[in-house]
Amino acid sequence: MNAEIIAVGTELLLGQIANTNGQYLSKQLMGHGVNIYKHTVVGDNLPRIRQAIRLAATDNDIVILTGGLGPTEDDVTRNALAEEYGLNLVYDQQALDKVEAFFQSRNQSVSDANRRQALHTEGAHVFQNSVGLACGMAYKHTDTWFFLLPGPPHEMKTMVEKEVSPFLDAMNESRDFLLSRVLKFYGIGESALEARVHDLITQQTNPTIAPLAGQDEVTLRLTVKTADPTDASKKLDELEGAVCERCGSFLYGYNEDTLFSSALDYLRSKGWTLAVAESLSGGLLGASFTDVPGASDVYVGGAITYSNEAKEKQLHVKTATLAQHGAVSEACAEEMAEGARSEYRTDIGISLTGVAGPDTQEGHPPGTVYIGIAYPDKTYVYKRRLRGDRASIRRRAVKEACACMLEVGDER
Amino acid sequence: MNAEIIAVGTELLLGQIANTNGQYLSKQLMGHGVNIYKHTVVGDNLPRIRQAIRLAATDNDIVILTGGLGPTEDDVTRNALAEEYGLNLVYDQQALDKVEAFFQSRNQSVSDANRRQALHTEGAHVFQNSVGLACGMAYKHTDTWFFLLPGPPHEMKTMVEKEVSPFLDAMNESRDFLLSRVLKFYGIGESALEARVHDLITQQTNPTIAPLAGQDEVTLRLTVKTADPTDASKKLDELEGAVCERCGSFLYGYNEDTLFSSALDYLRSKGWTLAVAESLSGGLLGASFTDVPGASDVYVGGAITYSNEAKEKQLHVKTATLAQHGAVSEACAEEMAEGARSEYRTDIGISLTGVAGPDTQEGHPPGTVYIGIAYPDKTYVYKRRLRGDRASIRRRAVKEACACMLEVGDER
Repeated sequence: MNAEIIAVGTELLLGQIANTNGQYLSKQLMGHGVNIYKHTVVGDNLPRIRQAIRLAATDNDIVILTGGLGPTEDDVTRNALAEEYGLNLVYDQQALDKVEAFFQSRNQSVSDANRRQALHTEGAHVFQNSVGLACGMAYKHTDTWFFLLPGPPHEMKTMVEKEVSPFLDAMNESRDFLLSRVLKFYGIGESALEARVHDLITQQTNPTIAPLAGQDEVTLRLTVKTADPTDASKKLDELEGAVCERCGSFLYGYNEDTLFSSALDYLRSKGWTLAVAESLSGGLLGASFTDVPGASDVYVGGAITYSNEAKEKQLHVKTATLAQHGAVSEACAEEMAEGARSEYRTDIGISLTGVAGPDTQEGHPPGTVYIGIAYPDKTYVYKRRLRGDRASIRRRAVKEACACMLEVGDER
Repeated sequence: MNAEIIAVGTELLLGQIANTNGQYLSKQLMGHGVNIYKHTVVGDNLPRIRQAIRLAATDNDIVILTGGLGPTEDDVTRNALAEEYGLNLVYDQQALDKVEAFFQSRNQSVSDANRRQALHTEGAHVFQNSVGLACGMAYKHTDTWFFLLPGPPHEMKTMVEKEVSPFLDAMNESRDFLLSRVLKFYGIGESALEARVHDLITQQTNPTIAPLAGQDEVTLRLTVKTADPTDASKKLDELEGAVCERCGSFLYGYNEDTLFSSALDYLRSKGWTLAVAESLSGGLLGASFTDVPGASDVYVGGAITYSNEAKEKQLHVKTATLAQHGAVSEACAEEMAEGARSEYRTDIGISLTGVAGPDTQEGHPPGTVYIGIAYPDKTYVYKRRLRGDRASIRRRAVKEACACMLEVGDER
């Protein structure tokens, strides 16, 4: 089954937001064995939505539209579908009850504009919106299924999870699955990685293997098409084995893994605890670790010491060290990491000090970063020269700190 | 002038990444007076790229394609344009020299695949790539200009800034500008905001006024179309004045402002310094403040106290407080904020403690958050019940802390 995803919203064409709904829906549909051949974004404009519907219907079994189901005058996606195929719009009682209850509970009267959120084309299957007011729908016209889903990502995702996924499963009983496994690499560039697996890329047809440069990282996507899930896993295992013979030392995780979840998994496997000492990253390293659910059995906390005074008072960095070497120095990184370890009473301390920019600091250009990894018996310090703007340098610095910690762990 | 943006890349259709290039280019083109009517995403597939080119050319003065200019076999955007219009591909000497120098400096031989990155259709204007190897190009076929730009966002953005923007300026001498101003609101929902400015939305045609629900925030985009920049600013000022009469108390900033940059600006205007004490946010509040360039004159640092032991040792939260009220409590938030202030010797301390989830903690459901704002003479504590998953709760908690701090400042 082929599908196109049409996102409706002038705010997308004006660049106010990115089309993350398209990204999410692609992933979801792939899991249902649906091939996505196109994403389209059009504005809140009835004739243009109709044109997009018309074009998409000629090529696809499924057309998903997101956005334009709300209460305002520029929300016209339902109308576009209805006008294109001469359909009537009718109210869904359950959705209408929800709209009315919502406003009654706030002692407000319900406007007709708000009631419109409960409309669907006659004969459609209605998807209820458990976190918002606009209902969604599925409607089959000749050979094409149209899905209309709300635009706000939270509402759209909840509706997909609760209502659309089961519906897709039910309508699509026999099919080939597309199963993907994403291998995640850090510390090797895209072209170097691709060169190492070039023979696999050219020889393989099923599974396929596709490199993708991510943010500071590279991934390889292995995708197998098959009707048999067991066979799929086996084929992916074999290909992964071949990949790892060529560049396994850079592999840190799979699919949704991040450098931070992998680092926490590593520390957890050793039974170790962790504290951080952050200067240029200002809390981003701690935030990245605690972004991972269940971080608290490993991660204890840390000190954000943006000022020199805080470095001295909170982490016992020596006044002489700061005077002699400055805050952007190997010595300072070393004392910060040790200070985090001792103050927070953990097995490991990681420190980050350097220059995020845009200005130079102590004569060092933006991107100069020192990373300290304190073990009970020894402290390791790495110097890095990172490229990019302030946000990139900070983002890369915390990833690099994580990678250094894993590297020290491997070497000890 | 009308334009369509076509992003080429199977990784986009598979949902591995979002089409942020479309977002960026929309913003840029709007600044050049170009109206974007459509975004399209197609895979690395020659016939489908040709079809997208063909469809876009019928409706648009400008068609921008990003991606598919690299060295791998699935990079076929140039070929698609050349085949569609029967054009020859030729090498650009400057781009070719750069490719060869790149590999020579690494003592590697240059493959033909890599040389392809210097190809363009005969007669095109070539855009050099100062941060990568694939050159871009502009080519006019009958009445449509085609722009081919690299897919990696960093390369694409640099090329647009350095080469494409001046080219667009030169080709488009007389035109209307579209000038936008974005007003940013926090603490009011989209529908409530829209209701307050409904009369303006329906009455205004130039400038227009458009609400957009962002992440936890709402914005109003005021857009004026005019040939005269001075007139544009004046019209936007007038409309902003009318908006602020209706909901100015929720306005916190403009365009690229964030709650955090606004909070730092506020503290800077008072000459005050700031420290944080973070539990559930794990460093995210500090990271959000230090994401703002120049934060260091206000923001000193803070303690990430994920464990109770760290709360006691680093922030002097009393053992009795934790035993009696727990870490998720008004009393703990109060002592944390005061501890941050005294330990980091700042004017203001902000604390965050609560439950990010997914599990309950001390019997409190995810989303239970206490925010402390310590002033020299008084500490204010707010309780919030935030909705969403772990990441949303953390993100909202730090924004809410920032908003509480601004609110206290207003009230004192």
